[in-house]
Amino acid sequence: MTYNSFLDRSPFGAVVVDTTVTWRYSADDQTQQVTLMLYRDGDWHNPHEVPMQRDQQQFVTETRIDTVGLWFYAFLVNDATGQFWYGCPDGGDGGLGQMYADRDHVQMYQLTVMQRAPQLPAWYQRARVYHIFVDRFNNGNADGHVNHPKPDSFLYGQLTDRPYYIKDENGQIVRWDFYGGNLKGITKKIPYLQSLGINALYLSPIFEARSNHRYDTGDYFKIDPMLGDLNDFDELIATAHAAGMHVILDGVFNHVGADSRYFNAAKHYPRIGATDSRDSPYADWFMFKHFPDDYASWWGVKDLPAINKDNTDFHDFIAGPDGVIDYWTKRGVDGWRLDVADELSDPFLDQIKARLAHYPDRVLIGEVWEDASHKVAYGSRRRYLLGDQLDAVMNYPLRQLIIDLVLNTISPASFINHLMTLKENYPQATFANNFNLLDSHDTRRILTTLDGDKQRMAIAIALLYTLPGVPVLYYGDEAGLTGGVDPDNRAYYPWTAIDQQTMALFQQAIEWRDQAAFATDSAWYPFSFTGGLGYLRESDHATSLVLINVTAAPLTIGTIDWTLVPANKQLPALASRTLAPFEVTVSEDA
Amino acid sequence: MTYNSFLDRSPFGAVVVDTTVTWRYSADDQTQQVTLMLYRDGDWHNPHEVPMQRDQQQFVTETRIDTVGLWFYAFLVNDATGQFWYGCPDGGDGGLGQMYADRDHVQMYQLTVMQRAPQLPAWYQRARVYHIFVDRFNNGNADGHVNHPKPDSFLYGQLTDRPYYIKDENGQIVRWDFYGGNLKGITKKIPYLQSLGINALYLSPIFEARSNHRYDTGDYFKIDPMLGDLNDFDELIATAHAAGMHVILDGVFNHVGADSRYFNAAKHYPRIGATDSRDSPYADWFMFKHFPDDYASWWGVKDLPAINKDNTDFHDFIAGPDGVIDYWTKRGVDGWRLDVADELSDPFLDQIKARLAHYPDRVLIGEVWEDASHKVAYGSRRRYLLGDQLDAVMNYPLRQLIIDLVLNTISPASFINHLMTLKENYPQATFANNFNLLDSHDTRRILTTLDGDKQRMAIAIALLYTLPGVPVLYYGDEAGLTGGVDPDNRAYYPWTAIDQQTMALFQQAIEWRDQAAFATDSAWYPFSFTGGLGYLRESDHATSLVLINVTAAPLTIGTIDWTLVPANKQLPALASRTLAPFEVTVSEDA
Repeated sequence: MTYNSFLDRSPFGAVVVDTTVTWRYSADDQTQQVTLMLYRDGDWHNPHEVPMQRDQQQFVTETRIDTVGLWFYAFLVNDATGQFWYGCPDGGDGGLGQMYADRDHVQMYQLTVMQRAPQLPAWYQRARVYHIFVDRFNNGNADGHVNHPKPDSFLYGQLTDRPYYIKDENGQIVRWDFYGGNLKGITKKIPYLQSLGINALYLSPIFEARSNHRYDTGDYFKIDPMLGDLNDFDELIATAHAAGMHVILDGVFNHVGADSRYFNAAKHYPRIGATDSRDSPYADWFMFKHFPDDYASWWGVKDLPAINKDNTDFHDFIAGPDGVIDYWTKRGVDGWRLDVADELSDPFLDQIKARLAHYPDRVLIGEVWEDASHKVAYGSRRRYLLGDQLDAVMNYPLRQLIIDLVLNTISPASFINHLMTLKENYPQATFANNFNLLDSHDTRRILTTLDGDKQRMAIAIALLYTLPGVPVLYYGDEAGLTGGVDPDNRAYYPWTAIDQQTMALFQQAIEWRDQAAFATDSAWYPFSFTGGLGYLRESDHATSLVLINVTAAPLTIGTIDWTLVPANKQLPALASRTLAPFEVTVSEDA
Repeated sequence: MTYNSFLDRSPFGAVVVDTTVTWRYSADDQTQQVTLMLYRDGDWHNPHEVPMQRDQQQFVTETRIDTVGLWFYAFLVNDATGQFWYGCPDGGDGGLGQMYADRDHVQMYQLTVMQRAPQLPAWYQRARVYHIFVDRFNNGNADGHVNHPKPDSFLYGQLTDRPYYIKDENGQIVRWDFYGGNLKGITKKIPYLQSLGINALYLSPIFEARSNHRYDTGDYFKIDPMLGDLNDFDELIATAHAAGMHVILDGVFNHVGADSRYFNAAKHYPRIGATDSRDSPYADWFMFKHFPDDYASWWGVKDLPAINKDNTDFHDFIAGPDGVIDYWTKRGVDGWRLDVADELSDPFLDQIKARLAHYPDRVLIGEVWEDASHKVAYGSRRRYLLGDQLDAVMNYPLRQLIIDLVLNTISPASFINHLMTLKENYPQATFANNFNLLDSHDTRRILTTLDGDKQRMAIAIALLYTLPGVPVLYYGDEAGLTGGVDPDNRAYYPWTAIDQQTMALFQQAIEWRDQAAFATDSAWYPFSFTGGLGYLRESDHATSLVLINVTAAPLTIGTIDWTLVPANKQLPALASRTLAPFEVTVSEDA
């Protein structure tokens, strides 16, 4: 009486609508009847009840799923002793399930049904991304001067200073702090990034804004003067492209800055912004409870007035013809990462994706912190990945799994099961091309999360670069930069104090990534054993074997759980092999 | 039955020891006996009882005061009705006194007895000082870059930003804020200052320190690198001298910075500072309650460890041969302003003065906030001005009087009486050469104190430049700079937004000052009337008349109180003259 969603449903994982799916439930002789109970998302009272047919030790059925969206399922089983349910493990992962006494307690498996499979640009599938928080990466001015410092702001005395928020007695940021990194600085470091093996850049917002992070857009059509001008932007794009690199911008379309051309609370822009007059062309973008001082804002941050999610005028401003997306994409931007994608409406996301589809080979990535395949935001199930919306999402769940694994708070077997669940829930191409990361400007830096332990760091890096998905390196991690929560995770790149040991770890991992076996479309067959795990990556032409000891002691590999590895690819000879403490090995053509 | 200390004691004011002083008490026919009761400071039980002799309507006596220090006196009077005391007005001013019923309540007049009269350098007596808070005046680098920003500090984004302290959640300053003014910047502005009529500079501390104010000295023998180097210093001195200007430095000798070569709490200096080891050569400078973290500091500010006041090693370090005073004075410094002079011991002050006496024409000014002639600090009467210590003090009492007068919170008559009391208490040369100011880095700016009222500002400026004493202009006041309490009073000089109206007021007043009648040694004869006041300034060769209407209405001068003006200099024709609102007139050779 077992069902393992990773093995017993075919095809595996998410399917395109109208695909015929086969389920196999393994039963014993006592089992009399098995019914596949298939629920359309939200319609919990009218399951499709699909009787399954006995085929030796299995009950089998096929069904064609004709509606896009999420489906959930379990099995209703009758045997000599009565009736029970069989669903996924308590906790909601896929894989091997368990029995439940009644309908009320059963946890259901997820089946993701797409409109169509995502088509990702070839360059993105090969991308090794570098995430730059622009103020903190590099100042390209020969004399190091900072371009056009803003009024009522502060510049760091030295580039080695740790970041610090300048707050008033109420804890509000009163003046923004800048190091003065700029676009020229990135352009100048393209040779460095190239030598590191990087071939794509993801830049934090670069449009005019008041803050150092620039998620408070002031003018969507203007490069922030501290970062440079349009020439600097064009030069960066041209230099990157000439170096075979692609550039992804951060699209912040859920809110703007209070100090913006559109809202104009600080009156730094010419009239007329929304707070200037009810007659402002931007008046309807915002939601005033009391004009002009009481308004909806992002998480109550008054600096970030929220856009009315249903305002189609704003949608057109961003994603219409000659809108923001058009303007910058025409200038050579290769992709967009959508800030707080889960706060943008589905029609708006559709429109952004449709606009981007006018250009070849562009990619659209969403900021979603959870398993985006079944995220519920604002009371609605989201359809980011079911086709025609996002291509991939920031893979924060993977980040947590890697941290938990290397800090030994979950077992290798559990790590694999969680990751397989993501693989099952996401469209294959999404899982294979998700925006994988160990950290970002919104988390502690990985080396700090790991308490400075470079052996564990080595494992985390190896996982980032050898697991399915597109690896994203947060600037400075490769230099051994540490940092706790914001703002400490946004220190300036330590150009004069690069930690060569950490650099070597990244260089090694990026080299591995370059092997054919680690291409995003290669297969991934994970296996675990006590104290460690491994996986085969297999493409048409190559195979690599990764073996990791996640413990601080020498480890002799014992019994291996080969469940997820096809029989003909299993390597029983691994048993009894000994791994050094925290050893990571990557061997080609294993 | 009257006595007016301003008129009835001769000589007027402070006297050198062994001077014969004559007192005249005006009595009526009923008065039988008047005794001058003369108390040596602190010896309140053993007065010198000096019987006075009737001379027509007066009782008169002479006495030679043979002890340096303060003396206090009142009169014991017998008439037909009995006995009473006659002392100074309630409140402690000099001038016309009043009767008191008994000894316990009588307020006594002060008589200041000096060792010798101060000898002030001729240049200082003609000085029109400009007080520069160095970080905030001018950056002399052609490209505006800031020299050697300190670690963990912030630079203002724009020079027009208002000052802001960067504090942590406990209200402690955690990072210092800098605009980047420097010595070269001052040197470059000497032509400007010269055109303004300035001929002396008083600079806030310029030695290496962590803060922007630099009262937390890190190294007494090093120019702060943000301000420049020794060459810049030498060039500033040479340029100033060549322009006929003199330079006064700020001497901060009561405490040092925690982050100093001497204390070394932050370990930024090579060993060995006092906190590094008990064997530090500086160990005894400080007072540790618990080594090395609990120590005496200035007003409990842990950033400013206090020097043991009796540590003669420190005294020698500062004022001994080849000490700090020697080093910088030899390089051309023309005078020192002693920070918190009232916290320095008398022997230390004596030693500083003696050291400075090795050089011709140097001046020593003390920071004292009260009437320094009778200040009690740490339980002791101080002898700053009795000879061989300070030449003059910062005249904060005058500042308050001017503000009170122009804001109409005291009457013109009261203003004159208070000021005459200062004149009486101070040595003549001190009063004539005190460091007069309307504001400083420790007060609100005068224009802000006056709520931006430029008519009242005009009166304050006229008083500063036409009253006895050396006028000190706090940088930026002439440009119309405003500012509340610290740090707002320390804004950067508004080079691109100079208020020409205010500038003209200062230029006019400095021109007046240049008239012979306003030389520091010229006489000052004040008079008052309802709504205004005036004074004659008279030197050997010239007389000027100042007339001021301190009200917002046109004023016809009524009865004038000529008490303090010799009969042959009174100008009765002034009565019935009409003054415009807030009018200030200065007429030569009146």
